[in-house]
Amino acid sequence: MTLNEAKQKLAEFEKTQFALSHSMGLMYYDGATIAPKGSADVRALTLGEMSRISYNLTTSPETVEMLETLVSHKDELDAITSRKVSELYLNYDRMRRIPVQEYVAYQALLTKGDAVWHEAKEKSDFALFEPYLQKIFDSSKQIALYIEPDKKPYDTMLDLFERGLDTKRCDEFFVPLRKKLVPLINKVKENAGKVDDTPLYQTFPVEIQRKFSNFLMDILDLDRNHCIIGETEHPFTTSFSKNDVRITTHYYENMLVSSLYSVVHEGGHALYEQHIGDDIALSQLGNGVSMAIHESQSRFYENVIGRSREFGAVIFPWLKKEFSPRLDSVTEEEFYKIVNKSAPSLIRTEADELTYSLHIMVRYELERRMFEGELTAKDLPGEWNRLYREYLGIDVPNDKTGVLQDSHWSNGNIGYFPSYAIGSAYAAQFLEVMKKDIDVAKEVKSGKLTNINKWFEERIWKYGRLYDPGVLFEMVCGRFDPDAYISYLEKKYSEVYEL
Amino acid sequence: MTLNEAKQKLAEFEKTQFALSHSMGLMYYDGATIAPKGSADVRALTLGEMSRISYNLTTSPETVEMLETLVSHKDELDAITSRKVSELYLNYDRMRRIPVQEYVAYQALLTKGDAVWHEAKEKSDFALFEPYLQKIFDSSKQIALYIEPDKKPYDTMLDLFERGLDTKRCDEFFVPLRKKLVPLINKVKENAGKVDDTPLYQTFPVEIQRKFSNFLMDILDLDRNHCIIGETEHPFTTSFSKNDVRITTHYYENMLVSSLYSVVHEGGHALYEQHIGDDIALSQLGNGVSMAIHESQSRFYENVIGRSREFGAVIFPWLKKEFSPRLDSVTEEEFYKIVNKSAPSLIRTEADELTYSLHIMVRYELERRMFEGELTAKDLPGEWNRLYREYLGIDVPNDKTGVLQDSHWSNGNIGYFPSYAIGSAYAAQFLEVMKKDIDVAKEVKSGKLTNINKWFEERIWKYGRLYDPGVLFEMVCGRFDPDAYISYLEKKYSEVYEL
Repeated sequence: MTLNEAKQKLAEFEKTQFALSHSMGLMYYDGATIAPKGSADVRALTLGEMSRISYNLTTSPETVEMLETLVSHKDELDAITSRKVSELYLNYDRMRRIPVQEYVAYQALLTKGDAVWHEAKEKSDFALFEPYLQKIFDSSKQIALYIEPDKKPYDTMLDLFERGLDTKRCDEFFVPLRKKLVPLINKVKENAGKVDDTPLYQTFPVEIQRKFSNFLMDILDLDRNHCIIGETEHPFTTSFSKNDVRITTHYYENMLVSSLYSVVHEGGHALYEQHIGDDIALSQLGNGVSMAIHESQSRFYENVIGRSREFGAVIFPWLKKEFSPRLDSVTEEEFYKIVNKSAPSLIRTEADELTYSLHIMVRYELERRMFEGELTAKDLPGEWNRLYREYLGIDVPNDKTGVLQDSHWSNGNIGYFPSYAIGSAYAAQFLEVMKKDIDVAKEVKSGKLTNINKWFEERIWKYGRLYDPGVLFEMVCGRFDPDAYISYLEKKYSEVYEL
Repeated sequence: MTLNEAKQKLAEFEKTQFALSHSMGLMYYDGATIAPKGSADVRALTLGEMSRISYNLTTSPETVEMLETLVSHKDELDAITSRKVSELYLNYDRMRRIPVQEYVAYQALLTKGDAVWHEAKEKSDFALFEPYLQKIFDSSKQIALYIEPDKKPYDTMLDLFERGLDTKRCDEFFVPLRKKLVPLINKVKENAGKVDDTPLYQTFPVEIQRKFSNFLMDILDLDRNHCIIGETEHPFTTSFSKNDVRITTHYYENMLVSSLYSVVHEGGHALYEQHIGDDIALSQLGNGVSMAIHESQSRFYENVIGRSREFGAVIFPWLKKEFSPRLDSVTEEEFYKIVNKSAPSLIRTEADELTYSLHIMVRYELERRMFEGELTAKDLPGEWNRLYREYLGIDVPNDKTGVLQDSHWSNGNIGYFPSYAIGSAYAAQFLEVMKKDIDVAKEVKSGKLTNINKWFEERIWKYGRLYDPGVLFEMVCGRFDPDAYISYLEKKYSEVYEL
């Protein structure tokens, strides 16, 4: 195969892979949003079959020859093609180690497992999900061992979501973080009475909350011609391409902040995906580069911006008017404090910024110990509840609000959680750097985040997967410094709670 | 290849084809319902690519060898496998005559064309759609010529939707039908004052109409665990398998009957798809057999049942109560007459039973003349309007309610329309036969159509595509007799209008 033939093949290969992942992504999205309840089994068959087609394409002799031809001409390739080739080769190298039947069975297991998880969560019935969960952990571990037989399988999983991450780096981040956060959390606890959030626990009609979501998406400056919002049990973002990005939320009539911050969080993910550079948009490089970078964006928008005084000033008048008279007696300053109220709680996605990473540590520890064989699925509810007591000091009343709350495990996303905490720490460091370039507070106050978006677009978003996540982060922020995160939290909460 | 190997290959082939058509079906559905407006171009790329994969699979040497092996052992195959093989062979034989690039380009054209049609209809701007429409007609004609070089291409199109149908049979059906209907339509026109439908043109809140759709779907006894309802500009039904059937409707606040009868119509399609036999459900035979048989079911439920006195008795109390006080002054008998009011009108999907087939004849004539080269796309609005004046005696005020009203052409469904009229005629004949077995009026009055569904399930639905449509129809009704349809219409409208 000549170099030109190989380049031609690469273009065709990318087109096909794009179509397959677009189709599978849509099927997953449909299953999570509107599909009839009884359709999961057939969807699992189709997804299994589609991933078999994708697997066969990735590992076909023709693809391998194409890749090897391109690798042998590496020096003659432009930067984008070169990156594509090394990413594809890495992916191929992983895929070929996994027996096709096991790979297909695993995809089908996840589709089925996800449907069972939905039902189990609804009924708060862990026993229903337990056998699937065990199988998902077993299969993930087996797949990790196929990919890297000589590496701890949980390290392989971490690396899949965040290249370069392992348990050692996680421990280096989490152990001191926990040590420094716990005294601060305790001080906040002692001052809990200073923030009264009862005004937000009235009845807020879902119809108005839906209107509010549109208002928020306008502030974020999301391109609505290429982004829709749907409703799911567990909010998520999916991007089929920059032209078709979808976020979801969940409305609770008696919990206004839940959909508020899930929309801003998922909106951050969506902004990233909408601003991938056109030169790589429909290629293998046309998505966010890693989970931690992705979460750094979503949590930047959710917390650094969304929970700022300036953002409150933009949205509070709208809320006050549309939900009148419910918030008539609340001041803007009180609203700011309410959305920053910190208290140990049960649900990760609704946790405040301060206690959030403790939720992550629980999941990290359980995943690690499942992979090390110390735990089986049936131990998880008990261990979950024990760790929530130990880390956060609270009792878990049922599995729906405990071990069944997140969709990650049912989707096979084991090793994903730590990237949320790392992303939060990245976000704090991004803020420090951004402040040197633009007046962040002023931009937020303007009611349109266009210039903040531009800052990220130029530095992060447009590059897609062109650089390794660690490299990209350092290009913008220099060395990763968790202390920036700790300082950010200390400053914010000392002020909110007047410590 | 041995017979056993070929059987094994057939099973694999069916699995893959099922997954591909499931994926493409979902993508089409998503595009027509909730997808972001700006996503059509990328969806077109993906659908083009997926149809290329499907084309390659259908025409691959391995598939051909499998088919030829099975064909050469035809006598040793069971009835189901034998039918699958002959259907697949026919499909392969058609596909291989179409150059792959043209096939892929055609699929992409349709996806793009559909998006443009949506916009053109919204803006009532035919010029926007015209170049796409011309290309769609040209490409369809070219594809028909590839499939059957020696046959009139429009006859090939008719046969694709209804095996055995051609212009000769259409003319034999339409010409006398028009002759007999016109005097009846004229008599009804003279008596127009006898039915006053103004009570149905009040404001009926969409929220309550949505509730009403659920009520209707319960009466139809649709399995809601495997069927959802969505909203689109133009109502349709899609079935990914009997486990996942989706109907859509369109709510107009000032036109209650529109969504009422689109839900019952699409519900008829959905019932058919939900009751395909389990033995063939996920195979090539697992769908309704033809458009005319499909429309015979949807129009049976819509008109024969949905516009019966007994059905009115079931739904009218609900409407009266939920929409109170809007219908307080209307009696049940008046309601029955209102929903059967006949008057020449602009929109096919909202036409009454009596004038309906004239709408079809307009489209049939235009399609035929487009294919014969007598017309080009730019002539269509003018010719459309002329024929509406000639056949129905009404003036078309704009293209939105004229030539742009239907989605069929933008989807490449040229040759589809005649099957609606044939289906309506089939429906009248089904009623005659059904009455010999069950008390149809009593079943409808019971408020649950279970036994009527069972009658169809045993005779039509469970067979899927196991028999040719003409054969299947004759198995149940004997020879096709359009006079049954004419008698049905004469009897009904003489009674409604007291002629």
